[in-house]
Order: sequence, then structure tokens, then C-alpha cells
Amino acid sequence: MSTNQQFVPGLDGVIAAETAISFLDTEQEKIIIRGHELIDLSQNNDYIDVVHLLLDGKLPTASKKTALEKKLTSNYDIPDQVMQILSLLPKQTHPMDGLRTGLSALSGYDGDIDNRSLEANKSRAYKLLGKLPAITVNSFRLINGQEVVKPDPTLSYSANFLYMITGEKPTAFEAEIFDRTLLLYSEHEMPNSTFTARVIASTNSDLYGALTGGVASLKGNLHGGANEAVMYMLNEVKTAAAFEELIQRKLINKEKVMGFGHRVYMKKMDPRALVLKDALKQLCEKKGDYTLLEMCEAGEEVMREDKGLYPNLDYYAAPVYWMLGIPIGLYTPIFFSARTAGLAAHVIEQHNNNRIFRPRVHYIGESY
Amino acid sequence: MSTNQQFVPGLDGVIAAETAISFLDTEQEKIIIRGHELIDLSQNNDYIDVVHLLLDGKLPTASKKTALEKKLTSNYDIPDQVMQILSLLPKQTHPMDGLRTGLSALSGYDGDIDNRSLEANKSRAYKLLGKLPAITVNSFRLINGQEVVKPDPTLSYSANFLYMITGEKPTAFEAEIFDRTLLLYSEHEMPNSTFTARVIASTNSDLYGALTGGVASLKGNLHGGANEAVMYMLNEVKTAAAFEELIQRKLINKEKVMGFGHRVYMKKMDPRALVLKDALKQLCEKKGDYTLLEMCEAGEEVMREDKGLYPNLDYYAAPVYWMLGIPIGLYTPIFFSARTAGLAAHVIEQHNNNRIFRPRVHYIGESY
Ligand SMILES: CC(C)(COP(=O)(O)OP(=O)(O)OC[C@H]1O[C@@H](n2cnc3c(N)ncnc32)[C@H](O)[C@@H]1OP(=O)(O)O)[C@@H](O)C(=O)NCCC(=O)NCCS
Ligand SMILES: CC(C)(COP(=O)(O)OP(=O)(O)OC[C@H]1O[C@@H](n2cnc3c(N)ncnc32)[C@H](O)[C@@H]1OP(=O)(O)O)[C@@H](O)C(=O)NCCC(=O)NCCS
Repeated sequence: MSTNQQFVPGLDGVIAAETAISFLDTEQEKIIIRGHELIDLSQNNDYIDVVHLLLDGKLPTASKKTALEKKLTSNYDIPDQVMQILSLLPKQTHPMDGLRTGLSALSGYDGDIDNRSLEANKSRAYKLLGKLPAITVNSFRLINGQEVVKPDPTLSYSANFLYMITGEKPTAFEAEIFDRTLLLYSEHEMPNSTFTARVIASTNSDLYGALTGGVASLKGNLHGGANEAVMYMLNEVKTAAAFEELIQRKLINKEKVMGFGHRVYMKKMDPRALVLKDALKQLCEKKGDYTLLEMCEAGEEVMREDKGLYPNLDYYAAPVYWMLGIPIGLYTPIFFSARTAGLAAHVIEQHNNNRIFRPRVHYIGESY
Repeated sequence: MSTNQQFVPGLDGVIAAETAISFLDTEQEKIIIRGHELIDLSQNNDYIDVVHLLLDGKLPTASKKTALEKKLTSNYDIPDQVMQILSLLPKQTHPMDGLRTGLSALSGYDGDIDNRSLEANKSRAYKLLGKLPAITVNSFRLINGQEVVKPDPTLSYSANFLYMITGEKPTAFEAEIFDRTLLLYSEHEMPNSTFTARVIASTNSDLYGALTGGVASLKGNLHGGANEAVMYMLNEVKTAAAFEELIQRKLINKEKVMGFGHRVYMKKMDPRALVLKDALKQLCEKKGDYTLLEMCEAGEEVMREDKGLYPNLDYYAAPVYWMLGIPIGLYTPIFFSARTAGLAAHVIEQHNNNRIFRPRVHYIGESY
């Protein structure tokens, strides 16, 4: 142990973990999830497949997939008291804070909470994934004084999630696009929220704690909060030209433009963003209105030309969610729900081969 | 950015931040808090002084100290709905999880939550410190089906905290010892919970989120949870000889013995532990019963001889809290309450000069 080391702000480029879960291969320009390419998965598989891949290590057979979907569906119910807790939160509570409180309260219902074994952790993760749509949607609804929606176990996991959000049974096309966003959000190596979850888990703390920390991290607008920030920005104006101008003004004021840039691929477009740009195109086509796509493309162009920066996933997730009729306040909570699969995989991996995270500092304070 | 770096498990020795708040100077064997030695502070100052030092950068004048104590006292009240939320938690909820839920719910009452300025953050931190004794004690009481205790604003901050815990007005001697434990717990450079709070804050997320993550981290028995684990261990037997045997058995079974070891000073006694060992001695003297001290000393000896390991702060905090009549379930929540001063200082520092924490990984998974 020596503190004569170099300080790298934000641990840029520092290796914080060995992981078999995922990797951003910047040389080959591939996002790898347990040996599979995420972009390929988004074309050939659905979210449930990737949940299985993340938590069980491989893609499911047809029967395993049915069993997994059933496991999630059979865990849809939330204790009444948790709903009461959520209904007591003040109206101005941020949806991510409501979700965090709900998740935190759920920990008290786990009679096996001190068990850190692989099997207990996995079973816990699946149960939580089953409960997440209801917690996510209803914390938002209760904060907003709306009635609770009950999950519909006859729908697929993603179709039910979208149904609970909008209150309307989605078309197969809508459900498919929504599912693709969940899949793309499911896992992405070591972003801040995943790192947070692993750091917490490394004290031998439990999955609920790691996830509440993950919600707190994802809320920030430099991270998951960017998707809602992008939508508020798009809603400020109505045309591509006005959006271009809005971004230029931000750049002149030296503001960060949400939805652009990424620690790992700063000078390229996030490959996941391309998939959602295509989804946006399809949604615009269906609606016969290309305004949002044109605005986004205008924004993309000005950022590339003026700053050499490219869109990240949140930039295109925002208009896709908008066109699916999803309230803006749910964008980041949905991101979190989807990412829970990845976060749980990381917590399990951390518990399985653990050393507590405990770095050092450079002291720059008062002398002594 | 390159990933050809060496991987150090647990970021052992890696510099994660520049900070003016605190430093463990292992060469000079000093714990430095903004230029002051923590052990000196524990002899000459009280917890409120150190809160001021941490959040305002210097020790308070007499009038500033009175003003600070008033500020905390005037923020004692907790919204009724938060109490209702806590009363809805299942009886088996861990006290740290109850505290986390209460803190998380409080975020909804902050009308200025998006303000990350130094002034807003400081005022938020002071308000929260005012509310912590009531949230900490009453979450525990409500989970255990006991009645809520109201804070007594005529007592000092620490005396009131201890009064709320035990239900009895403490003697000056008891209040002083309790205050010393808060002071020693207040800040300690970059342990896991502080790191968690900074990692979360670096996404531009808020103080509440950073603190809920901090609770989750501190709960783990490799970190704050060690203090309650030590007390359960001490309670398993009744004599020094039996305790020695119990520890030897654990070592033979290759179990970790809670309360020993520390990432930064593994081969020396934690200087804070010495101060609390002395406090334990005083408490034993008052009571005319030295059993707990003898047991602890026996444990210390066997760990030193068999493993070359020394006690950390939690090892002596546990019997001190026991002799003060504090329920074991509150040991880690009290640690968190005290540490909130340090955590808040770190969140403020992070927000003031921020870069998002986003490290990388070594991929050891399926090939592709
Ligand atoms: C993602 C992000 C946090 C990565 O951060 P990082 O690796 O620490 O990079 P930095 O913030 O140090 O940025 C490097 C440079 O690019 C600039 N930059 C990065 N993202 C920018 C953005 N979105 N808008 C404007 N400028 C940006 C920075 O200002 C900095 O410029 P400088 O060197 O002149 O100071 C950052 O790109 C960002 O804040 N993006 C906006 C938020 C967002 O969309 N988050 C979701 C990520 S999936
Ligand atoms: C504090 C602590 C987490 C530091 O961890 P760390 O820096 O990662 O150190 P390691 O866990 O790698 O320990 C190094 C060696 O000492 C041993 N060791 C450390 N603490 C030990 C303990 N409390 N009991 C028995 N052995 C211990 C480890 O087993 C390891 O031995 P090995 O090299 O033969 O495998 C660790 O000492 C510990 O777990 N202590 C008990 C929990 C506790 O009291 N926490 C409160 C800290 S304030």
C-alpha cells in the first residue's frame, strides 16, 4: 500500500473489477455480454433471454425461458404495506426517490436476507425483477395521486410493464420496441450505478442495499437521469431548426448537453443509440410524423460538428419512450428496472469473490 | 484510456479522490481532519465542534457553536408521514434498512432538492443532522413495536440522542462518553461508505441518495456492521477464558473475527480503538465490573498472538455501547448518524469539483 500513486479523476481507465459479465471492447467496437454481442442480442433475442443470460450464465432454452417468465410473473405482487408507504410520500417526491424508498422497504419482507449464497442471491434477484414493474409504475402513480394499476399476468413481462405504464394494452409492435429498450439498458460493464452496487455489496451488504444505492446513482443527470433531461430539452421547442439553436446556445453557455458523450466511447456513437434511432424511425413511420427524429438528427449534427461528440443511448431512448406514450418521470425508473438484471449479476459476482473496496486519497487540506 | 492496467482487488492503495477533509497519515500515525488530529479532538472537543470543522472548514467559536447546536435542535422534527412509513415496515426489518427507508423518504420534503450549490448542500446537511437522532432511534423503535420518543431540545445534541435511545436522561459522564464515540465515528478518510457516497454524488445525484447508499454500505459486517457483530460475539460467552476459546475456534474454522483488522492499519491498533478502550475502562470502573474489559483484552491478545491482527474502532465501540445501555440493533445506525457529518462533507466536496466515477474492468468471461 502506497499513496505515491497518480490520481486519476473519476477513476478514468482504472480497473476496478474482474468480471465475466460484460465488457466494452473498444478495439473491436463490440459490447459483450457473457460472450454475446449486445447488438446481436437486440436483433435476435428479447429482454427475458438476456435476464437469463446475465443471471444464469447462458441464453435459455425454450422451456427455461417459459419457466423464467413464469417465475417473474408469479412474483408480481407487492405487499399492501409497501403500497401504503408509497402513497404516504409527498407529491413532489422525484420518481427515482419513490422507487428507492419502495425498494428499500421491500428488504423487510425477505426472511432470508442474510443469506449471501449464489442460490439465495439468484432467487432474490428473480423475485425482485418480478416485482420491479409494479414498484416502478405504482410508486410513480401514487406520488402523482393516481390509482394503482395491477399487473396482468396473461401478458409477457415487457408487454405487461408497458401496459401498466400507459394503462393500455400495447400492440405487438409497441411491446417489441419497449422490450428492445429494456434489453439495451440491461447491462453495460462498469458504469457508475454498477460500480456503486459492487462497492456496496463488497462490505457484505445485501442486494437490496446495493440496488437502492444503484437507484441513487442512476438518478443523477450525468448518468441515467440524462434520458429525462433529453426529453425536457426536446420539449422546449418544436422544430429541428429551433432544437439546433437551443443546443448551440447551450454550447455557447458552456453547458453540458445531456444525451451526448460517454466515458468509454466519447468520439463515436454509442452502438446502442443506433439501434434506438432505428426504433425511433419505425415509430415515426407508423405515426406518419418525423418531427422528433428530425430534431434529434439536427441535434446530433450540431454536436458532432461543434464538439465532436456523439449521442449515447439516453439520447434516443427519450424520444422512443415519448412516442410510446410513457410519462417522462418514468424514463429513469424504467432504465433502472431494466438494469436491475445487470446490477444483480454484478452483486452476485462480487459476493462470490469478494474484497472490500477501500481506496485512498491525496490529501490537499490544511497542513498539520 | 487503456485497460492494460493492473487490477488491484478492492482498489487497495488506489487514489480515488483529492480531498481537503481528512487523511490517515500512516507514517506519522495520525488521523487528520482538516489539519487537526482526530485523537486530540477527542480529548479537547466535542462532536458538535467536529461537525462544524467538517462542514464549515474550521472549529467553531463559542457563539458559532451555540448557533450550530441551535440549528440542529431546531430541525429535530420529522414529518408525521415519515413516522407512519416507518411504522408500516415489517417487524423483521433490519434497523439499518429502516433507517435507509426513512432517510430515503425524507428526500421528498426538500423543496430545493435540485440545488447542488455549496450553501444549499450545507444547509441540507445541517437539517439532516438535526433529524438524524429522531429518524435513527424511532425507525428502530417503530420496527420493534415501541412508542416513538420525542427529542428533548433542552439537552445537548449528544445527550438528547442518548436520552432518546435509552429513554433515560443520561448523566454528564455517560453523555460525554457517548459524545466521544460520535466524534470518533464522525470521519475517517475514504472507507467504503464514504467512497459509496462520493461515487453516487458524482453522477450529480443528491445528498439523500448519497446517504442512502452510505447506509447500505455501512450495514455490511466488513464495515459498520462489525460493531453489532462484535457485541453478539461477546454475548455468546461470559468469561475472558471462554471468549479466548471462542475466538480461537473461529480462527481454526478460518472465520474472520469481527472487530479486527483494517485496510489502512492492519498491523497496528486503530488509534481510535485505544480511546474507546479507555472509555470502556472508565465505564467498568464506575460499575465495579471489569468483565467486558477483561474479555476484550483476552480477545485482543489471542488475535495479536495468533494472527498479528489488532482491534479496530468497532471492537471497543461495541462494549462501550453495551455498558451505556444501548440496544445492539442501534450500534450501526448510531455509527451512520455520527458519520453523516463526514459523508456530507465529502458529498459537498465532490459536487464542488466533480468528475463522474466510471472505472473499467478486466473481462474474464466467455470468449467471443
Ligand atoms: C457521459 C459523461 C458524463 C462522460 O464524462 P467524462 O468521461 O468524465 O467526460 P468529461 O465530462 O470529462 O468530458 C470531456 C470533455 O468533453 C466535454 N463534454 C463531454 N460531454 C459533453 C456534453 N454532453 N456536452 C458538452 N460537452 C461535453 C466536456 O465538457 C469536456 O470538455 P473539456 O475537456 O473542454 O472540459 C459526459 O459525456 C456527460 O456529462 N454527458 C452528458 C450526460 C449524459 O448524457 N449522460 C448519460 C451517459 S450514458
Ligand atoms: C477490515 C477488513 C475488511 C480489511 O480488509 P482487507 O484490507 O481487504 O484485508 P483482507 O480481508 O484481505 O485481509 C488480509 C489478511 O488478513 C486476514 N484478516 C483480516 N482481517 C481479519 C479478521 N478480522 N479476522 C481474521 N483474519 C483476518 C485475512 O483473512 C487475510 O488473510 P490471508 O492473506 O491469509 O487471506 C478486514 O480486516 C476484516 O474483514 N475485518 C473484520 C471486519 C471488521 O471488523 N470491519 C470493521 C473495519 S473498521
